[in-house]
Amino acid sequence: MQVLWLWMALCFLCPTVVHGGKVLVFPIDGSHWVNMKVIIEALHSRGHQVSVVRSSDSWYIEEKSPFYNSITLDSPSEFDESFITTFIARLLEIQREGKSFWTRYKLEIEQAEMTREMYEKTSEFVEMLLENKDLMQSIKNTNYDLVFTDPVAPVGAILANYLKLPLVFSARGTSHGEGHFDIAPSPISYIPLTGTQLSDQMSFFERLQNVLMFGFLQYQIRWFVTPSFEGLIKKYFGPGTDYISLFQAADLWLMRVDFVYEYPRPTMPNVVYIGGFQCKPAKPLPEHLEEFVQSSGEHGVIVMSLGTLIAELPQDLADQIAAAFAKMPQKVIWRYKGAKPATLGNNTLLVDWMPQNDLLGHPKTKLFVAHGGTNGVQEALYHGVPIIGLPLIFDQPDNVHRLEVRGAGKVLDFFTMTEEIFFQGIQEVLNDPSYRMNMQRLSRLHRDVPMKPMDSALFWIEFVMRHKGAAHLRTESYRLPWYSYHSVDVMLFLAGITLLILMTFAALARCLCSRCVRAKSKRD
Amino acid sequence: MQVLWLWMALCFLCPTVVHGGKVLVFPIDGSHWVNMKVIIEALHSRGHQVSVVRSSDSWYIEEKSPFYNSITLDSPSEFDESFITTFIARLLEIQREGKSFWTRYKLEIEQAEMTREMYEKTSEFVEMLLENKDLMQSIKNTNYDLVFTDPVAPVGAILANYLKLPLVFSARGTSHGEGHFDIAPSPISYIPLTGTQLSDQMSFFERLQNVLMFGFLQYQIRWFVTPSFEGLIKKYFGPGTDYISLFQAADLWLMRVDFVYEYPRPTMPNVVYIGGFQCKPAKPLPEHLEEFVQSSGEHGVIVMSLGTLIAELPQDLADQIAAAFAKMPQKVIWRYKGAKPATLGNNTLLVDWMPQNDLLGHPKTKLFVAHGGTNGVQEALYHGVPIIGLPLIFDQPDNVHRLEVRGAGKVLDFFTMTEEIFFQGIQEVLNDPSYRMNMQRLSRLHRDVPMKPMDSALFWIEFVMRHKGAAHLRTESYRLPWYSYHSVDVMLFLAGITLLILMTFAALARCLCSRCVRAKSKRD
Repeated sequence: MQVLWLWMALCFLCPTVVHGGKVLVFPIDGSHWVNMKVIIEALHSRGHQVSVVRSSDSWYIEEKSPFYNSITLDSPSEFDESFITTFIARLLEIQREGKSFWTRYKLEIEQAEMTREMYEKTSEFVEMLLENKDLMQSIKNTNYDLVFTDPVAPVGAILANYLKLPLVFSARGTSHGEGHFDIAPSPISYIPLTGTQLSDQMSFFERLQNVLMFGFLQYQIRWFVTPSFEGLIKKYFGPGTDYISLFQAADLWLMRVDFVYEYPRPTMPNVVYIGGFQCKPAKPLPEHLEEFVQSSGEHGVIVMSLGTLIAELPQDLADQIAAAFAKMPQKVIWRYKGAKPATLGNNTLLVDWMPQNDLLGHPKTKLFVAHGGTNGVQEALYHGVPIIGLPLIFDQPDNVHRLEVRGAGKVLDFFTMTEEIFFQGIQEVLNDPSYRMNMQRLSRLHRDVPMKPMDSALFWIEFVMRHKGAAHLRTESYRLPWYSYHSVDVMLFLAGITLLILMTFAALARCLCSRCVRAKSKRD
Repeated sequence: MQVLWLWMALCFLCPTVVHGGKVLVFPIDGSHWVNMKVIIEALHSRGHQVSVVRSSDSWYIEEKSPFYNSITLDSPSEFDESFITTFIARLLEIQREGKSFWTRYKLEIEQAEMTREMYEKTSEFVEMLLENKDLMQSIKNTNYDLVFTDPVAPVGAILANYLKLPLVFSARGTSHGEGHFDIAPSPISYIPLTGTQLSDQMSFFERLQNVLMFGFLQYQIRWFVTPSFEGLIKKYFGPGTDYISLFQAADLWLMRVDFVYEYPRPTMPNVVYIGGFQCKPAKPLPEHLEEFVQSSGEHGVIVMSLGTLIAELPQDLADQIAAAFAKMPQKVIWRYKGAKPATLGNNTLLVDWMPQNDLLGHPKTKLFVAHGGTNGVQEALYHGVPIIGLPLIFDQPDNVHRLEVRGAGKVLDFFTMTEEIFFQGIQEVLNDPSYRMNMQRLSRLHRDVPMKPMDSALFWIEFVMRHKGAAHLRTESYRLPWYSYHSVDVMLFLAGITLLILMTFAALARCLCSRCVRAKSKRD
């Protein structure tokens, strides 16, 4: 379940002078911004004018940028960086405490409650936005060509629908699930739901698990998500529109996956796969890092990062990881913000930040220990570096599971992990050449595309600008009620007709029979 | 219903010396070959060696070519060119006689009988092919990189499966329906079946019609198609393989449509859309044609062609068309093989063959009168020339209907057509500027693609060569039995469990109640 959507509260719109196309961006803060920014820079370099809506206390989105104008809004303080990182830290602690059914259930309930609260606050925020006449007028006056947004938060989608502007998503998931499920037929017999860590080839009981997860998600959407927006939608859109239809109205879905990584599944003409668009050949490392990497000799380097959200680890876990690293002949570069583990070896360099893409592309890099965020997984895939996955939430467990299924990585469990398990896991991936070979095979497939994913993304965004949408690529079938979409009404009608014919025949036959009997009895 | 598949009977394989990739092609004769040849020439120019399997009495596929080696087989004479054109001429006559339900039914039955006969003969032919040890050995020795075929005939697909060679389709339809229906979820509530002339937005009764057509096609497949191949499949493939699975095994479907023309619908990762790949800017016309075209002055030119199969028309119909043309100020170039119509005007030039693409791309060309074959429709779309459709069979009525729905053409009915109707239809399309504007809008959309469809086709064919298939783009879900694919087994299991729980509760409740009653009666 996608929980992380951080939004931007209300302020004033800086009037902009626009050349070329005009793009209004509603980004998601944190790691999602990291790759959204890559597209924004490319749009800018192609002469388009980009306005980015950001919160005043954003973690990553700078107010001043040569690539975009900011529209800075006051952020609701409940869901700032510290709130999210504290939540993640608590999640990690609970996972370490025990993974009983009860713990998981408690977590799900807590998470669902938080999600419901987020939806309600988002709904209030959007209403405030729509009621701000100055802001709305200013947006209208700017004549944007399209709204570009990450559908993990619904704000951009709602605004684009309200303003009747073309809408382009940069998507992996939406506010309510995996992106494809909104728009493409998704037979759950072979499409694993996010959070199940299943593959596209499931046993009966795995399919059962998938169906149950599907039911649970539907329940969440029906009881947590859509009710929060019902009033808003009724007020601003009227009948015929529901929450999901605001997403289905998108002209284009730029999906941040590809089928080297994702299991093959039905898709739609307005989905463009841009997985790995942010990856590029490695640049030279800063001198001190290059020196450290070179000092690893033939053993090479292990790179570890648990992403932007897991800033710290429980001390015992950090100590165990550090102790395992200390026993290895490799050098280790570990992005870590917590207190220095007591067991830290001389071979391990703790850093606050690392040039991850350049490190993964370095020929000395042998292994990536990662939490399984989409960005990191795509970069490892691009550079062909096998993975040890330490996933925690969101789509992370599924992301690294996909690589494990393909023999390109190994997933370890935060709950059961000890120094020994961590050490053995790393040894296995380093010493069994199949992991590296499989990852490099995936990398070759990933890179062998007719067009770079970034060029594809830019082409299609500009296509939507040129043609004011992409109506011919988007089906209108979503407007059908479910019983029509699935032809249930037609089947019932046919069944009715058949029954009528059978009953008429039966009545005729009975009538004839009784006449025969009467005639016979008369003759007798 | 796809009827036209002409095949190639058995002969000897010319041993070939191969450089670069090696491609074994099973083409379809007639118009299908015209565009298959374009890809073959391009493959040759990129250094691949192509072997084309052709029949000894092929209409279009030459034995000697600088672009490919031929594997010439003796053709079963029943289904040669004259057989097909005679059948088409008869079809046209019946259509002109009357379009009563009875006539249509008779036609369907005749067609179905012919189809069944074709399937059976094809099955025999394939078995003969597989039993020819020399031929099979020779193919194996050549080490082809892939089989490239049009799935309107199943021969290439069966052989590729048998030889375990990667398989690429150049497809619109298969031997048993529209291509997508084999591989992508196809909700028939908004995907019109071939032959219905419906759009993607249907009323209840149109959806009913679509469901009935779906049922009819399923009946045809189950009773006419698959039984013909059951023995063959059992003998050469064993359990787990059925007729449809031979098509689902294709690594790649190069679909000869795009979504400017086709209604948006679910698709799969291994489908690549190459509609219009054969189109190119017009070359200068031969001198005599250019002179004729220029003589049209400001009125411009009408181009008419009913394709390769409708060589002649009933005399009365040809006379009516010619008379209508004679009344117009435009010049007319009409591809026609029959006896010269008595009413032919001075403004009309009858030709045996025409450089269709160059004519449609000529700035003087105002209108294309066409039967609605995919090639012609795509060329008209590419050059932005509106269409008068005179469709007869196969996908022709649907093809031109798609343009009519989009306001880019008008469909006339062979059955009801008179000189006056034909004249008025042409006047309408010529004089109402919306037809041309709509077709030119479609043309702009069609041409606005990130990569030329031909380059896309070549890239993906070579991709399959490089990676010995495209397994990561093809789902294995087709192997699931239908009740698993649709999660029916899981739902029944869940229903069973629920029932069991309810019954246990009910039993417990009954037990408790009866105890209470007994206790009460004891007390009393």
